[in-house]
Amino acid sequence: MSLFEFRLDGRSGRARAGVFRTPHGKILTPAFAPVGTQATVKGLTPRHLSEIGAQLILANTYHLYLRPGADRIAALGGLHDFSGWPGPILTDSGGFQVFSLAATRQVDDEGVSFRSHLDGSMHRLTPEKSIALQEQLGADIIMAFDECPRPHDRRYNEEALRRTHLWAQRSLGAAKRDDQALFAIVQGGVFRDLREESARFIASLGTPGVAIGGLSVGETKPEMHAMLEAIDPILPEDRPRYLMGVGSPEDLVECVARGIDLFDCVLPTRMARNHAALTRRGRLNLRASAYAEDPRPLDPGCECYTCQTFTRAYLRHLCVAEEMLAATLLSIHNLSLLLNLAADLRAAILEARLETFVDDFRSAYRKHRPEGE
Amino acid sequence: MSLFEFRLDGRSGRARAGVFRTPHGKILTPAFAPVGTQATVKGLTPRHLSEIGAQLILANTYHLYLRPGADRIAALGGLHDFSGWPGPILTDSGGFQVFSLAATRQVDDEGVSFRSHLDGSMHRLTPEKSIALQEQLGADIIMAFDECPRPHDRRYNEEALRRTHLWAQRSLGAAKRDDQALFAIVQGGVFRDLREESARFIASLGTPGVAIGGLSVGETKPEMHAMLEAIDPILPEDRPRYLMGVGSPEDLVECVARGIDLFDCVLPTRMARNHAALTRRGRLNLRASAYAEDPRPLDPGCECYTCQTFTRAYLRHLCVAEEMLAATLLSIHNLSLLLNLAADLRAAILEARLETFVDDFRSAYRKHRPEGE
Repeated sequence: MSLFEFRLDGRSGRARAGVFRTPHGKILTPAFAPVGTQATVKGLTPRHLSEIGAQLILANTYHLYLRPGADRIAALGGLHDFSGWPGPILTDSGGFQVFSLAATRQVDDEGVSFRSHLDGSMHRLTPEKSIALQEQLGADIIMAFDECPRPHDRRYNEEALRRTHLWAQRSLGAAKRDDQALFAIVQGGVFRDLREESARFIASLGTPGVAIGGLSVGETKPEMHAMLEAIDPILPEDRPRYLMGVGSPEDLVECVARGIDLFDCVLPTRMARNHAALTRRGRLNLRASAYAEDPRPLDPGCECYTCQTFTRAYLRHLCVAEEMLAATLLSIHNLSLLLNLAADLRAAILEARLETFVDDFRSAYRKHRPEGE
Repeated sequence: MSLFEFRLDGRSGRARAGVFRTPHGKILTPAFAPVGTQATVKGLTPRHLSEIGAQLILANTYHLYLRPGADRIAALGGLHDFSGWPGPILTDSGGFQVFSLAATRQVDDEGVSFRSHLDGSMHRLTPEKSIALQEQLGADIIMAFDECPRPHDRRYNEEALRRTHLWAQRSLGAAKRDDQALFAIVQGGVFRDLREESARFIASLGTPGVAIGGLSVGETKPEMHAMLEAIDPILPEDRPRYLMGVGSPEDLVECVARGIDLFDCVLPTRMARNHAALTRRGRLNLRASAYAEDPRPLDPGCECYTCQTFTRAYLRHLCVAEEMLAATLLSIHNLSLLLNLAADLRAAILEARLETFVDDFRSAYRKHRPEGE
């Protein structure tokens, strides 16, 4: 029997509620994965993550390869032991960062050469090398090496898609560990035919899960939704679908409704460091003077530690005084919001009331709510 | 009956073990108070502080007066409600910061005028104003307004001592709340006769506790120890003695042995932010490459969350990658070390084996232990 199993517990429209079993625990879907780029979700301990109900943490192969080195993490027992997070972990392939963060780079069918954004040193990633690194890191879910082009460049997307499919096959051929689920990645920019072609090809590989890359990188929301709707009927029903790098509250709701099971995004923790709080009714800029004497919790409906313990006035003080605790407390809240939203979406699917849930969410949610309410 | 009571449970030489009762809980002494300058111990939640056994937190009146304002904190229920820390809190008078942090300042017998280090705005503190601010902040233990001169300037110390005593009386006269214990402060630099004179005067005021200021500000350790030895027989036996701003592991041991009950110091959290770890055998610089693959806990004997969960290699990675979590995890450890050391000193006093404890500590403790052990 495989160490991985995806079971669908319910559906509501295109939306799905399932359970994905991994060697380090099960993931109830839809699920949102907090991002721990450098083997730490910035400002939170693994215990914080357990307490807010995180099920899956993402780590970035590109960053960990450059520092401290995948070999070091392997020598220390892999990412779980290294980071102290005992639950499921997912690593990306490094491809996206090579194309977005690295300095100069040269890509050919064999792989990509690039300069480290840290010290300018030269490195080379290939599908085989990416898989070898991810096997050293030891996550439960790993990704095929892919090329992530800008979404609107047709010619580049055609070329990148050819390469991504070639690299998916080579990634599969290179993988040796049977305790890691290797997901291949659908690309194709905003082009419906390319996305469909990619979904068919990736589905044919029979991987235990399918990732969808190259979205939320410059296209519009309607373009993103159209791509998800195009590939939904093509993707295998019995495998989890992971939409990479997407995860605002509104994205979670809209994309779950379009058949997505797994998400990751830096948004909740990055916004926390910029002193913005997510709520189901919009965003709050906690630095605003309107909150200076506001005795209410950040988000009155929320049961997270931050909302149960502190006032907006105190959080605003921490933000204005540039205290580290601001980012920690806002990260606890912002991640709780996404994790609870995913859990509520799951419940709504299982109870066949997703449509109402989505309608209610859309009408309550307004971006950039006026400060001070 | 007073809301405050100090009971001595045991003695060993000059050292004392006691219990100080306050409206927000009791403090077992000797005790170390983590510093939460801006109403937050940098990087730690109140729950972290409870878990590591903190009994008393210090907050700085100068900082909170300037931002967010003592009136705002009062309107939000005082420091306990504001910060989410339910236990005992101590505020200083603002005097030390005015003399060390503020830009230009002018002092006369009436008070001190100074410019804010934040925005250059002009402010004035007097004994009456300091007490009024501390009453708004609402800590359990508050301090008389004092002048803290450089320790070796005889003439300045004589003048400052006269003023400090005058201000202590005015502070006492200004205090209205009976749920705050107002401590007066012994000054006198490194001059034995001034320290003795100050101890006699401050003791005569009958305050529920006595603070000792102006040490660890430039004098040598032998000078500090000599001052403590000089005033020990003069200070009242039945009141807690608080040595302000002092609190390295070695200071804790040496000063408890010289009759001190309460300490506060930014050292453990500041060192944590600079990636240094305290142990009972010396300090570790966690950025050192020697730790890059070190699978041991930071401090093998320690039971704190950091030492129970993470390797030196992981902590070193967080430091080198400039991750916020490094400061949080090292603060948890460094504060745990001080809090456990204070608890162990208390046990040694109660079990009449302090002398052996101090000897053992001194022989194990070497500063700047070579990297990698």
